[in-house]
Amino acid sequence: MSKISDNPLYKYSPVNGEIAAELKKIAGEKYVIFNDPEKLEPFSHDETPGKEWASMPEAVVRPANVEEISKILKLANEKMIPITPRGAGSGLSGGAVPIYGGIVISCDRMNKIIELDKENMMIVAEAGVIANDINEHIREHNLFYAGYPMSMETCYIGGNVAENAGGGKAVKYGVTSRYVLGLEIVTPTGEIVELGGKLLKDVTGYNMVQLMVGSEGTLGFITKVILKLIPLPRYQVDLLCLFKSSEDAIAAVPKIITKSGITPTSIEYMDKEAVHESCRYLNENIPYQNAGAMLLITVDGAEKEPVENDYERIGELCMQEGAFEVYVADNPTTSERIWKIRRNIPEAFSVFSKKQCGEDIVVPPASIPQIVSEFKKLSTKYGLRIPSYGHAGDGNLHSRIIAPPDWTDDRWKDTLPQVLNELYTLVKQLGGKISGEHGIGHKRKKYMKNVVSEEYINMLKAVKKALDPNNIMNPGKIFE
Amino acid sequence: MSKISDNPLYKYSPVNGEIAAELKKIAGEKYVIFNDPEKLEPFSHDETPGKEWASMPEAVVRPANVEEISKILKLANEKMIPITPRGAGSGLSGGAVPIYGGIVISCDRMNKIIELDKENMMIVAEAGVIANDINEHIREHNLFYAGYPMSMETCYIGGNVAENAGGGKAVKYGVTSRYVLGLEIVTPTGEIVELGGKLLKDVTGYNMVQLMVGSEGTLGFITKVILKLIPLPRYQVDLLCLFKSSEDAIAAVPKIITKSGITPTSIEYMDKEAVHESCRYLNENIPYQNAGAMLLITVDGAEKEPVENDYERIGELCMQEGAFEVYVADNPTTSERIWKIRRNIPEAFSVFSKKQCGEDIVVPPASIPQIVSEFKKLSTKYGLRIPSYGHAGDGNLHSRIIAPPDWTDDRWKDTLPQVLNELYTLVKQLGGKISGEHGIGHKRKKYMKNVVSEEYINMLKAVKKALDPNNIMNPGKIFE
Repeated sequence: MSKISDNPLYKYSPVNGEIAAELKKIAGEKYVIFNDPEKLEPFSHDETPGKEWASMPEAVVRPANVEEISKILKLANEKMIPITPRGAGSGLSGGAVPIYGGIVISCDRMNKIIELDKENMMIVAEAGVIANDINEHIREHNLFYAGYPMSMETCYIGGNVAENAGGGKAVKYGVTSRYVLGLEIVTPTGEIVELGGKLLKDVTGYNMVQLMVGSEGTLGFITKVILKLIPLPRYQVDLLCLFKSSEDAIAAVPKIITKSGITPTSIEYMDKEAVHESCRYLNENIPYQNAGAMLLITVDGAEKEPVENDYERIGELCMQEGAFEVYVADNPTTSERIWKIRRNIPEAFSVFSKKQCGEDIVVPPASIPQIVSEFKKLSTKYGLRIPSYGHAGDGNLHSRIIAPPDWTDDRWKDTLPQVLNELYTLVKQLGGKISGEHGIGHKRKKYMKNVVSEEYINMLKAVKKALDPNNIMNPGKIFE
Repeated sequence: MSKISDNPLYKYSPVNGEIAAELKKIAGEKYVIFNDPEKLEPFSHDETPGKEWASMPEAVVRPANVEEISKILKLANEKMIPITPRGAGSGLSGGAVPIYGGIVISCDRMNKIIELDKENMMIVAEAGVIANDINEHIREHNLFYAGYPMSMETCYIGGNVAENAGGGKAVKYGVTSRYVLGLEIVTPTGEIVELGGKLLKDVTGYNMVQLMVGSEGTLGFITKVILKLIPLPRYQVDLLCLFKSSEDAIAAVPKIITKSGITPTSIEYMDKEAVHESCRYLNENIPYQNAGAMLLITVDGAEKEPVENDYERIGELCMQEGAFEVYVADNPTTSERIWKIRRNIPEAFSVFSKKQCGEDIVVPPASIPQIVSEFKKLSTKYGLRIPSYGHAGDGNLHSRIIAPPDWTDDRWKDTLPQVLNELYTLVKQLGGKISGEHGIGHKRKKYMKNVVSEEYINMLKAVKKALDPNNIMNPGKIFE
């Protein structure tokens, strides 16, 4: 764990007793943590594997509303204190980690669903609402929020928006950004601003809503979101398609989409090791657990018959393209059982392996097979394990680079950057990027230059400076 | 027509012979227009009705490629000359009008489809490609680009992106922005930058792609676009639903969406006068042309049966909700005949009326009935005609405020702002905005403050200044 708040580049002020008293005046005594390392510690990290990405805050505030956040930001901007916004802490790039100390603002108390607007098919929620709770809340009204990050049982909608979370249904439904129509934010200088609204189209000014989505809390604090809902797809079928090898499974992915003319809801890829580790973690058993690789393909829709037609067509195509077995899960229990395995892969790896790095590269969907073969080569060359899984249907592959148990810390620290540089060079050649949905945070920032131009980074910096002149909002994320 | 290049607020330099010579060196003698008012005139306006929105450029350049644009922008940025990017000139807010003179850069020669990437289901096109040509190009491959602005037979894709064009299929498919995955732009300082890519998800930095989309050429010059394609919907049925009154028709709109559980491709509204004027302009005749109002509802899809089920369900719902007749157009000829009437409404009004103003307000979809009743009240109060039509399904209503033929110019100029102020006040109360898809341009900029906060405008200005420090890119648009 490192603390760099005295880095001369960043002339931030410390959070002293006086500032802490101010914070208590704003948010109430019991909602400020200060001078209490044990209680501060949980706010020093997110779910990124590796202690090197953690850093202690000087204070944590848990405000009740947007007005309190506005006051805190005005104070921080005046006193030059870094602010790190925090959702559920389920991020995977260190985005919620206070790398320069300062104040972490947690939105966990801002957890109200403000309004379900059935007539407009929209929902208004505070930033701290758990993503899954939105769908629980609206299901009885036959409405559906299509965001589906793998951490949906814990992650907050505000964090989803700040990171532009992707997830398991993006092939058909797109990522979080598609559903964000409006935001209430607090600017880095403490102003409360409404962006967008309950509007399906809006060109009244720049698209500041979409500039905020995915900006990782560096441009403002998201306090409220307006989301578009869609009619609940009443029928869903999952296909678990078994292949002999990773190569076979992954080669089938682009063909399924282009040959079928169908856009499935999900096309998830899991290699043998990923399935195995997750089953071990969950104490679960599924047929052919030792298949070389699996595709989990979902189709859904409003009517039973088209959904049935679609899954049959896709199932047949999978067999043609090399699957040796296709299991059909057409009831919620079996479906949830399979998806639970998929969702728990990252957690399983985190539990079972010490030295590891989670990747989130994204390439044009047709280039996914090349990436999988590259992982194999890198794995052999460096003597590492690189199990892979993820959202193959949209070209977004997750993988864990895992060091053998006998490697020293030094060997790991020396080798990993070499592996990543090789990987990212290929990703760039294929027209890809280093993050599809987990974000850059501070974990990936030094690799930005591997895939984007200096001019692009300069544009980001210019925008950041324009909206956060004192660089107090989540400094040190995305770029230095 | 006004020319304000000597406004002391804007210390722009004139385009003199020396500059013109430089431009000719960059783009070639025959692609620069200078000192030739007759040839410059077509570049002084777009399709916004009213001569007050026109302004002459000092020079027009028609570059062949991005490198030439880069050189022109470097020159303009150094010499402080305003640049106005121009597509097909089909805009409706004066966005392509050079209000401070300077140089208009037309992208009409950059009209190549660079690549159809079937494997990734994407297309790469230069900015000057006509929107409709994209679909002509890809139809045989069973692919579809879902943008459908009403001017699609003439407008350029670069302009569509710069304005975030909406159009007739946005209810189901969303607006232009949803399909823009990547852009090549030239920054106001002349740098060529790639944003995004052939990627279905990407959080590697801020979403600069979506910041550019809809920024009306004020943040950079769009030279190339990467668009996502979808499988061609093979079946399409249009319903022409006739209602006794505007109120009946418009009240049915939100009910059709929420009660059916179906998302139609289009829900277009046309009042009696709009249908009548367009038929007169096209010398066309349709049944019940004198119905009080019509809804044009489209459903499409990959399979025949679900499309049939959907249109039957929607047709029945329309009858329940007050339609007295529903015509079914299930072949391309009839379908195109009806859509042609819809597409030609704006042109018809432009031809038949002198003093008029086209509006583009957007409100939460369920508030559309209130807006239509407000138009009626305003029309009575001020003694004007306000025929309406547009994309009722997404809350985006077009309307023409038309002065009686006997009104003096002065009366029109005095009355219009009063009408707009009243209208926009209601729009704001309903949570709406002044433009859903036509843009702010210079036509609507003074009304921005009616619907957005000063803090929001300050954010826009800060971003603009950060990316265009000399304010040379399309100055005077969106805000002053």
